[in-house]
Amino acid sequence: MSEIFVGIDLGGTFIKVGCFDSKLKPLSKISAPTEAEKKARIVIENLARTAEQCVAKASFTMDDVSAVGLGCPGPARYSEGIIEAATNFPTFRNVPICRMLSDRLGGKTIVFENDANVACFGEFVAGAGKDVNDMVFFTLGTGIGGGIINKGKLLSGAGDNAAELGHIIIYPDGRLCNCGQRGCVEAYASATNTAKRATEAVEKGQPSTLKKVLDEKGEITCKDVYDHLKAGDKLAKEITDETAKALALVCINMLHVTEPKRIVFAGGMIAAGDILLNRIKDYFNEHIWNLRQETVDICFATLGEDAGIIGAAALAKQAAEGKLESA
Amino acid sequence: MSEIFVGIDLGGTFIKVGCFDSKLKPLSKISAPTEAEKKARIVIENLARTAEQCVAKASFTMDDVSAVGLGCPGPARYSEGIIEAATNFPTFRNVPICRMLSDRLGGKTIVFENDANVACFGEFVAGAGKDVNDMVFFTLGTGIGGGIINKGKLLSGAGDNAAELGHIIIYPDGRLCNCGQRGCVEAYASATNTAKRATEAVEKGQPSTLKKVLDEKGEITCKDVYDHLKAGDKLAKEITDETAKALALVCINMLHVTEPKRIVFAGGMIAAGDILLNRIKDYFNEHIWNLRQETVDICFATLGEDAGIIGAAALAKQAAEGKLESA
Repeated sequence: MSEIFVGIDLGGTFIKVGCFDSKLKPLSKISAPTEAEKKARIVIENLARTAEQCVAKASFTMDDVSAVGLGCPGPARYSEGIIEAATNFPTFRNVPICRMLSDRLGGKTIVFENDANVACFGEFVAGAGKDVNDMVFFTLGTGIGGGIINKGKLLSGAGDNAAELGHIIIYPDGRLCNCGQRGCVEAYASATNTAKRATEAVEKGQPSTLKKVLDEKGEITCKDVYDHLKAGDKLAKEITDETAKALALVCINMLHVTEPKRIVFAGGMIAAGDILLNRIKDYFNEHIWNLRQETVDICFATLGEDAGIIGAAALAKQAAEGKLESA
Repeated sequence: MSEIFVGIDLGGTFIKVGCFDSKLKPLSKISAPTEAEKKARIVIENLARTAEQCVAKASFTMDDVSAVGLGCPGPARYSEGIIEAATNFPTFRNVPICRMLSDRLGGKTIVFENDANVACFGEFVAGAGKDVNDMVFFTLGTGIGGGIINKGKLLSGAGDNAAELGHIIIYPDGRLCNCGQRGCVEAYASATNTAKRATEAVEKGQPSTLKKVLDEKGEITCKDVYDHLKAGDKLAKEITDETAKALALVCINMLHVTEPKRIVFAGGMIAAGDILLNRIKDYFNEHIWNLRQETVDICFATLGEDAGIIGAAALAKQAAEGKLESA
């Protein structure tokens, strides 16, 4: 019997599964439709089947699997293994997903975590944070997700909602966020809100080459903003600067709270590249205290979309080694 | 041989020492002048002598002491046991205070921590946080210090500077803080800055009964602000509201970062009482997200000035029990 680990990234559209050896070297990778609109029983059958196929693809059987890690967007009662109600899974009501998946997979240990935490752990064990012990992680996508590694472990709070870093308020009474708060960093610096701020500015009549995009496509995406930034558009630069400043401010705040050695940004928006990263560093240096010289590294993630399956497998490994309570 | 623990709170003016039994029940308490302006050797002799006197007062000898905890204002290299340079101790340069004190006390284990962290740990083991596992702590004094308890342990970061919660930026490009940043919560809501904002408003001509205080005493203190608030002064209410809002915003941000079960405020400013506490809660409820009902408790500390010696003794006990690496 070998010792392999399965990492599952359960998204609203696709299930991604990876098999990894005991050193977290990838053995196989597979994805399948989630069918999120169907009943929990069917989604969980899809999960189990995709996991079995991935294990078979790596030329192993489920008997060889030590533990399974499962990452899933919140809100969920992760420590209890239950999805109470999730926007991505409209039919789910108090679904004991860990127990159901474990039963279907012959009693395997299932470790269940927030998807941003899982991706954070992936970058920590195998990506941009693999040489540090204390890290903060942001995913810049539709929203902003977060994760915190403290002394080599994912930080979890009193409930299951630590590291909701997108909802740190940086501009009190500022832009309205989807969460109901005003001035969250997510309301400025997510990919969605970066595009939205550009759209609003163009609609208000600010001169920009992005106007043509809006007129022709009916919308401006975050990628459009960066494309036009690279082409020298002034508004695109202003919008990017505001994104970078918002991100620099949360970097400073996180430095003063959990004091990471490294801050890692992931998600679609990092495609903007060094222009964005350098502006974040500029604003960080401009706004940080002068009590001492700070040496925190600010960088981009390196694993791309695989962070989730690697992180989930790594959490499964940690649980199997008894370092974590498993669900 | 009994098992007692010594907690030391090293301030710029006074050394406070307490002896505690293995259940952290207080046995004796004593204080003495620090003589902070003198050489490190003399300050450390004062520390050692005061500790010995406190132990004797409890009818024990140093042989009965399991370990000693020492809290001291930053900056310091706590994990190395070294005060590099501290504003409170003008002659100190790279003083290996833990080794020197340990040598003087016959090789006792010395646990060294930031004073706000120590007070936080005191409130956690014996005060306002004794029935929770996850807590955030703020001391509102000249500055704002902080501490974080995560799963029953003090959170420390990559260096020795986690939980510098007074320097969370809440108003970007706002009031200048002593640290060089703009818009820190400390620049609004410390006792000093609450008084300073009142003074500035009176000097600008805002009508207030505090004008008479400024004219007569030449300064407005934080206590004056609260006294006049209680007497119904409108400016005092505005100033207090701004303090409460700033504190509510950092409560929200801390909830989204480390997710405490309880947030505890300490320091001279909590003498303001329920008027301040209720305003903090009002602003918290007004500005918090609506994704779920939050149940974090916001309250005042209960140990007063003893939090430091109790926390230091508790850290000593934790170290003696092998739960913490000692310095």
